[in-house]
Amino acid sequence: MTTGAGPAISIAEFQEIMRDGVPLVASFGVEVEAIGVGTIRLRMPCRDLFVRPGGTVVGPAMFALADVALYGVVLSLIGRVELAVTTSMTINFLRRPALKPVIAEARIIKLGQRLAYGEITLYSEGEADPVAHVTGTYSIPPHRPVEIDSPRYQIAPAADKVS
Amino acid sequence: MTTGAGPAISIAEFQEIMRDGVPLVASFGVEVEAIGVGTIRLRMPCRDLFVRPGGTVVGPAMFALADVALYGVVLSLIGRVELAVTTSMTINFLRRPALKPVIAEARIIKLGQRLAYGEITLYSEGEADPVAHVTGTYSIPPHRPVEIDSPRYQIAPAADKVS
Amino acid sequence: MTTGAGPAISIAEFQEIMRDGVPLVASFGVEVEAIGVGTIRLRMPCRDLFVRPGGTVVGPAMFALADVALYGVVLSLIGRVELAVTTSMTINFLRRPALKPVIAEARIIKLGQRLAYGEITLYSEGEADPVAHVTGTYSIPPHRPVEIDSPRYQIAPAADKVS
Amino acid sequence: MTTGAGPAISIAEFQEIMRDGVPLVASFGVEVEAIGVGTIRLRMPCRDLFVRPGGTVVGPAMFALADVALYGVVLSLIGRVELAVTTSMTINFLRRPALKPVIAEARIIKLGQRLAYGEITLYSEGEADPVAHVTGTYSIPPHRPVEIDSPRYQIAPAADKVS
Repeated sequence: MTTGAGPAISIAEFQEIMRDGVPLVASFGVEVEAIGVGTIRLRMPCRDLFVRPGGTVVGPAMFALADVALYGVVLSLIGRVELAVTTSMTINFLRRPALKPVIAEARIIKLGQRLAYGEITLYSEGEADPVAHVTGTYSIPPHRPVEIDSPRYQIAPAADKVS
Repeated sequence: MTTGAGPAISIAEFQEIMRDGVPLVASFGVEVEAIGVGTIRLRMPCRDLFVRPGGTVVGPAMFALADVALYGVVLSLIGRVELAVTTSMTINFLRRPALKPVIAEARIIKLGQRLAYGEITLYSEGEADPVAHVTGTYSIPPHRPVEIDSPRYQIAPAADKVS
Repeated sequence: MTTGAGPAISIAEFQEIMRDGVPLVASFGVEVEAIGVGTIRLRMPCRDLFVRPGGTVVGPAMFALADVALYGVVLSLIGRVELAVTTSMTINFLRRPALKPVIAEARIIKLGQRLAYGEITLYSEGEADPVAHVTGTYSIPPHRPVEIDSPRYQIAPAADKVS
Repeated sequence: MTTGAGPAISIAEFQEIMRDGVPLVASFGVEVEAIGVGTIRLRMPCRDLFVRPGGTVVGPAMFALADVALYGVVLSLIGRVELAVTTSMTINFLRRPALKPVIAEARIIKLGQRLAYGEITLYSEGEADPVAHVTGTYSIPPHRPVEIDSPRYQIAPAADKVS
């Protein structure tokens, strides 16, 4: 079932999608480090604007990074689909991040026809313990059928009762 | 039990706290419209950077507004306490917001000694239906006792088992 | 736009739906106290099986009550639709409930074509402060058009971008 | 830093804790299949009471299983601590489960002094794709210091700013 095509968008394509479609988050300097089939790794530098008293990174910047990571990981499976939007996200802040770049690692847990659900873990760069853990749901508008390069993420209309 | 003192911070004080302590969100142009005892109303203008394809406001800007609204509504009860931080938030996006300012109305549902839990509803300015609904928990560091101007939000150490 | 018909199901109908379709929760003795258009009030007695050490009601019983309350409040708007299912819920436990019946008050915040989003507040019977606060999303399968007796909850296909 | 002692409670001890402390969930027939240091695997049979129309397992039974799995995985690290309670949980239902036993696999993502945060994935027995994904926070009452048999989960008071 694997086509050998790899992720449905390249690093360069997702950089461009961010720049054109999510300019706020692009303005934070977010860079794509890696894209796989259903996985992505992003890096956000620590800007002066993100610093909070006590020397930590402001929560909304971390949320923004997680949100765009979920967007990217959805597109890694279905390719460039316009108007896909987040429907819900839950973020748990686990440790005060140091004043360092923040790394987001995201993966899709369930890909349905209309909804995708994934998980994003945030780390301070170079550290092992997560600073935040996020789960979220993306709404996918009607789109042409896609061929997904992974047996793990086939869209099965008949069995796909929940989303 | 009411002291007649009203909210524990003024509009001007919270504007200053945002500017000094949450510069990212302050840079979004968020303004305080009203503060009560356990309630707050904020307004965020619709910046060019917030626009997404399809003509809607980017989710992380709405999250940032909700997050700072929860911060403000906690301080409206306990006053300026350093290092209070969000521990978790759940955001549900309900409608695509128009390209208009976004209004946040927040209220505290539970104030404990160590945790506060509240709810934030976001609207496009001038519209009745919410564009997003958010719940969140704030962690409150040890602080001197405060007198709260509301019978609704007294901190009752003995009964306060959960937080 | 109001038809004067009131809620789309009666108390007796929802009692029957619970008994036939959600036997686990019906076995908890949950009773419907009131149904409105987009609102519901349920009561769950405090069974011996619900008691936890420290003299409090077990969390999953409260979740079950909230879940069925969300189901009821969705049906209060759209009537008996088979196979509507919860897609996500977030529960925050705020106070240890006393060993008393638990009351659930639910309301719909957003009704879309495919998803409904609502909020449930749980109280110990006769007490003013909530013991838990819950938000959740229900997935609504394709169904015949319904006429809703409330200007507040009209389903507007064109504007209903998110769900 | 590893003591070689393994998890802080045994399978038999947690079975007993469930039976005595969480009788509702014990009455569902939940069994412990495995306990590690910061991990647990539980199995819940599919009772007649759990069946919903369409031939699927009722959501609150899955929530109950996830909740007790989080309890168990906290105790696997800190041992038998009375009055630990869930403070919040978010459950996402991903697929309609078949009428089969449900397996819960839980792990702790962050262990703090006062709060623990973990993730629970639910499967239909023998199937690879999850039916639900849950995250939750447990509140840990003040307790004597514990020695944890894992470098991954040391409690570091000074660095433990968030919880």
